[in-house]
Amino acid sequence: MTPNALNDGHANFPEYHNVYIEPGSYEIYEKTNVFPEGTIMFKELQLTTKPEENPDGSRTEASGRGYFPGAFNGADVTVKDSKRFAASGGWGFFDFNHFEPKAPTVSVKSKEECAFCHIAGAKKDQVWTQFYRLLDK
Amino acid sequence: MTPNALNDGHANFPEYHNVYIEPGSYEIYEKTNVFPEGTIMFKELQLTTKPEENPDGSRTEASGRGYFPGAFNGADVTVKDSKRFAASGGWGFFDFNHFEPKAPTVSVKSKEECAFCHIAGAKKDQVWTQFYRLLDK
Repeated sequence: MTPNALNDGHANFPEYHNVYIEPGSYEIYEKTNVFPEGTIMFKELQLTTKPEENPDGSRTEASGRGYFPGAFNGADVTVKDSKRFAASGGWGFFDFNHFEPKAPTVSVKSKEECAFCHIAGAKKDQVWTQFYRLLDK
Repeated sequence: MTPNALNDGHANFPEYHNVYIEPGSYEIYEKTNVFPEGTIMFKELQLTTKPEENPDGSRTEASGRGYFPGAFNGADVTVKDSKRFAASGGWGFFDFNHFEPKAPTVSVKSKEECAFCHIAGAKKDQVWTQFYRLLDK
């Protein structure tokens, strides 16, 4: 979670990321340590609760000072298909808006828009497994 | 998420909270707007990635400066049973450690240890629905 207030007011992802993978592909990954063809990941974006009370964007609730999940703010989807998405390294990236409502349909993004950063920084096969303990093995 | 660094070094919950409810109780809640007897909520606690790089506990990754999920750090469970847990307002609170490994068995907590804060601040029936959009209706 990278709050706008800690990123000069304009984080690329100012939201909580709630990331889901379908059970079938996860089961295969558990056994093989490889994301199978057809793997779908769904990233739901959720802004922090407003109003912000401090310069760092945090506020205080019963549990203390910090960041709390608030309004939904769009979603991203990635699909693994080595042939169909060969141009972006084997995964297709889809942006269903970073605001609400989510887009009903979208086109695949170019390599420069999404995949380049995943290729550069994600630990395994364009997936940020370093931030998802169940996937990081 | 309430980082230690924003809470004088000692947040009650310095972790991400990943909260799960079993599908059957959720389905009933969707229809009735009431958490049925037997509802179980499982709260997995996940510390932020170390090392911290800034006084606020944040660090910088490819997506920007913020807080990233790291090591698991125990779990809490609540069970709704109005008779069995009448002394704590109808929910039983169980602390399976706020560190790893998780405890194999635990005893129910007193009202003063957990329920009092839920009774005082949670929006609906001791559940913090204000922070869980799918439950907040």
